[in-house]
Parts: sequence; structure tokens; C-alpha cells
Amino acid sequence: MRALHFDEALTLRQDFPEPEPQPHEALIRLRLAGICHTDLELTRGYMGFKGVLGHEFVGETLADYGSFAAGTRVVGEINIACGVCDFCLANLPSQCRNRSTLGIDRYDGVFSERFRLPIQNLYAVPETITDEAAVFTEPLAAALQIPALVPITPSQRVVLIGAGKLGLLAAQVLRQLGCELLVVARKPRPISLLEKWHIPYVDARRADWMDRVGRNSAHVVVDCTGNADGFASALTIVRPRGTIVLKSTYSGVPNADLSRVVIDEIKIVGSRCGPFGAAIRLLENALIDVESMIEAVYPLEDSLAAFEHASSSGVLKVLLRP
Amino acid sequence: MRALHFDEALTLRQDFPEPEPQPHEALIRLRLAGICHTDLELTRGYMGFKGVLGHEFVGETLADYGSFAAGTRVVGEINIACGVCDFCLANLPSQCRNRSTLGIDRYDGVFSERFRLPIQNLYAVPETITDEAAVFTEPLAAALQIPALVPITPSQRVVLIGAGKLGLLAAQVLRQLGCELLVVARKPRPISLLEKWHIPYVDARRADWMDRVGRNSAHVVVDCTGNADGFASALTIVRPRGTIVLKSTYSGVPNADLSRVVIDEIKIVGSRCGPFGAAIRLLENALIDVESMIEAVYPLEDSLAAFEHASSSGVLKVLLRP
Repeated sequence: MRALHFDEALTLRQDFPEPEPQPHEALIRLRLAGICHTDLELTRGYMGFKGVLGHEFVGETLADYGSFAAGTRVVGEINIACGVCDFCLANLPSQCRNRSTLGIDRYDGVFSERFRLPIQNLYAVPETITDEAAVFTEPLAAALQIPALVPITPSQRVVLIGAGKLGLLAAQVLRQLGCELLVVARKPRPISLLEKWHIPYVDARRADWMDRVGRNSAHVVVDCTGNADGFASALTIVRPRGTIVLKSTYSGVPNADLSRVVIDEIKIVGSRCGPFGAAIRLLENALIDVESMIEAVYPLEDSLAAFEHASSSGVLKVLLRP
Repeated sequence: MRALHFDEALTLRQDFPEPEPQPHEALIRLRLAGICHTDLELTRGYMGFKGVLGHEFVGETLADYGSFAAGTRVVGEINIACGVCDFCLANLPSQCRNRSTLGIDRYDGVFSERFRLPIQNLYAVPETITDEAAVFTEPLAAALQIPALVPITPSQRVVLIGAGKLGLLAAQVLRQLGCELLVVARKPRPISLLEKWHIPYVDARRADWMDRVGRNSAHVVVDCTGNADGFASALTIVRPRGTIVLKSTYSGVPNADLSRVVIDEIKIVGSRCGPFGAAIRLLENALIDVESMIEAVYPLEDSLAAFEHASSSGVLKVLLRP
């Protein structure tokens, strides 16, 4: 079968072996997949991954698996957990000590015609959610992990830095909490979406953008920039006793003095995968506009061109259809 | 009067002007003062401070001030707050936006025969607490700010890195919570105190100290090292979803990759000044052994020699008596 494989170089394999699901795993046919910032990082050597890329998907089951009848549309959590470590037993499989990760760490991903995933990772997709929306379940869940880990009250001032693919989902999630939200954006396409959604923003290309945001002013700052400078900006914007939420991974060390963290008793919280159930509820109720974030849909056959497109500056979600 | 003054160089002034308290301030006679790591940092240029150093003290009031009769033994909080900013109105004067800080930032400190402090900063010292114990109230309160900001349960594993003056107080505070505490220590004098107190420790001079502590093993790691390497060690020791408490300020940028914070959803909490009331209760009940931590007592006249002594490696608390 066709699969987009990475092993030091990205290649479209036409003859990739069919997946062989174990008894606890489902065989799934891909319907639609999304290219994420992490996929681009993986092709630059992040995690030292070798295998089929891809972890954002909507697919359909190819046989009956417990409550999932054959042909059920499904999305799925990306952490393949052991079920027996302390984190699994504490109902935190996303932090399983022995986990592999779909398309990220020692487990083939979804950029292929068919793939496997543990049955317990699957969620059925309600009929009213289109494939084009369902494929956003995983990144939307990651955005929902922000309020899952950091309580945000309606009267707080929240600044979100970085309006890329994840940032725009986070902005929509945060807006719904009623908080006083301000987004720091830089690229024309995200800015036009923020305008469409009536979400206040500051254009980071302005020389005075930091004055407009305000130093030491935000109860919560969310860093979705995906680069080391984001943390330094967050540390300037957060108020004493405030919280910085780190959402993005990158190689490199932040150039920031942690003395301010101590003196102003700032909290920093890392946040990764989030609740699929909540993401599905928001999509089902059409409370998040994900379809406006689609930049292009490519056939899997053209996935090298799709990756090229996805890695251009300022481009939002590029999808792959088998 | 005599005062230890810093203005690019440390000098013992014999003719320093008498303090002139404002109506809301008390005039206090020094009984005993402690030299803190921050004092040493200030003499190396931290905060750009000029003035009389010193913020750990026990003294006595020189007149009647409200509920404090003349001659009352007092200790005092070091943040001089405005009373009207959002943090003061939220009952967080330690984070006052317009604060000055006793002996640290734009307010003369206590290394002098007499000094002033707002009356609202004062706490009376119960009779059963000696001057030698009372002078530890401020750093003990700072140690108590760890459980004030981070809930620590009796079944959690807690690793404290850095057994200096603040670290040894923090170790005693944490031990009382019942948690599984391990201290990483390096110097003979702290190690002998940890042995005396039956607090488990690992000697950081051993090549295999990190193996003995255990990577990704602690629910909470407290960094009291006072240097940038402490954060990198803490990030190695903390378990996924765990918390790192930063207690010490230093110049310089930590050489640590924040990706682990995101992937393992780690929390980092800065912590500074703490609750004086709790510190006084613990001292009153003799639950903390502070007097074993006294290295030497110098007359104020010899305070330059005292500073020299306090800045030697591995030395614990050096006190000044007027």
C-alpha cells in the first residue's frame, strides 16, 4: 500500500507492507489526515523518528471491534500506552512511561492507506461532524488541554502569542471562556481569520507591539510560537503571580532569565495532548470554526508536494486524502 | 550611627544619618541580624542596590506604635507595599507593584544600629523564642512559601537540591509534611546537619549521585542551589506531571531544553517571600532547629569580616550584633 515514510529522508512508498494489527488493535482505513508542525519538525530530525508519519486523522474501522462496528468513522488518541505503569493506573495514559506515539515515536503513523491503533484509543465521530472538521479533533484536544491544566476565569486577561495552526485553535477555545483575550499574530492569513472571528489581536510586525500588549499585564500567557523567543516574550507579558502555558516544542534553549519567575512567583505549565471527548463536543456543536483553517487538500500520492506547501511560512492546515 | 553601607563597595559607616521614620513607620533598634545569600549577591551588583544592606532581623521598637509598646521585640516583613495597587487590594502586598524592599531595593536595610519599617510589617516575637531563633523568621517564612504555593501530600516523593542556608530550612519544613524527602547536598557542614536531623541525603560529590536520586522520579523538586545548573538537574529529576519549585535567584540563563516541560506537562513555580505567622508558630513550638545553623556571630563593627566569612564556600548563617 501507499505510505509516506521518513528515514532521514521523506519518501512516498508505493509498496509499504500492510499493517498487522495485534488483537487489541483496530485496522483503520484513512479518510483524511492533517499535517502538523510536529510532522515538519520530525522531518528535521526531532525525536529521531523513522517510520510512517502522521497522527491527525479521521478514518473508518475495517472490521468490527467491540462497540465499533465495521465502517464506523473514528478519530483516535495518539499515545499508545502500556496499561500497567503508575501513570496508566492513575488514568493518565497520555503520560504512560512506556508509551509509543502514533507517527511520532516508534509507532507507524496515519499517512498511509491503512494503519493500526489500539481499540481503546478510538472515538466514534458523530454524523454531524464532517471529515474536514473531524480531522481537527486531535489538535483541538491539544488546545483544550490549556484550560484542562490551568483554570482560567472569565475576568482574567489572557494573551496568546503565536497564531499558527495550534494558536488559532487555542484562540477559539480561550475566547469561549469569556476571558479578556488578546492574540499576538504576525502573518496575514491568521490575522484575517482573527478579524473574521472578532478576536482582538496585535500585529507583531509593529515596532510597538509589546507596548500595545502591555508588560506584566496578563494573568495567563499562552506560548504557541514554536520558537525559543516566545518564552522570553511570555515572561515579559505575564503579570506577577501569573501563569505561562507552554504549548509548543522546539529544539534550543530559551534566552530568558528565570530570576523573574522567582521574584514575581510566576508559574510555568507545560501542556501537551488533551481531551478528545471535549473536542468532539465542541465540533458537534459547531462552536469552533476549523474549516476556515484548511489551506489545501492533497491526494496522498502528492504528499511530498503537500509537505512542501505545509512548510511554507504562514500556511495553515494542509490535509491529505488517500 | 554605625551602618554597613553599599555603593559599589561595602563600607562600614560610623556617621550614617539616623533614620527618620514617617508617621506609618516604626523606629527599631537592632538586636540581631542575619546575612543572606541575597546580601552577598547585592554586593556583586544584583538589583543595582545602593544603601544600607540587611533584611533578616530581630529588633525592638523604640516608641509605642499601636499594639506594639516601646521595647517590644519584633521581626518584620521585607516588602514595603503601597497599599493601593491591585496586588495590595488583593491582599498580596508581597507582590505590590510599587513596592520597595528592605535592604534590597530602594529602602535602607537593617545592618545598622537603628532602622525604620512600616508598622504594618511588624510581628511581635513570643517570649519563648530567643533572638538567635527569631532572626531566622524571614528565611523560614521563605521556606514555608514552598508548601504555600505547591500543595505537597504526605505520600509524594520530594527531592530538594542545594543544602545551603535556605535549603536546610526548606528541608526541615518539607520533612514535617511526611513526604518522602531526599536532599542533594555537597558540603560537609550541611551534610552533618542532615545526618543530625535524620534527613536522607545524597552526596552530590559522588559521580553517581543522579543515579541514586533517580531520573524522572520526583513529584516535586525544589531548587535551592542558587545557580543555573540547579534548574537543569531539577528538570532531569522531576517526573512527568511533576512540579519544580524555584527558590533562588541568580544571574544567568539556565542551559535547559524546555521541550521536556511541554511533553511531560511539568509545572514550574517561582516562590519568594512567605508567611511570617507560620514561621513564628514553628519557632515557638521548637519544630525547626535553626540555632545549629549559626556559623558565627560578629559585632556590627566587624561586619566587613562577617561578610568575608559569610561568602566562604559552605558556610551557613553568619549573624551581626550591634
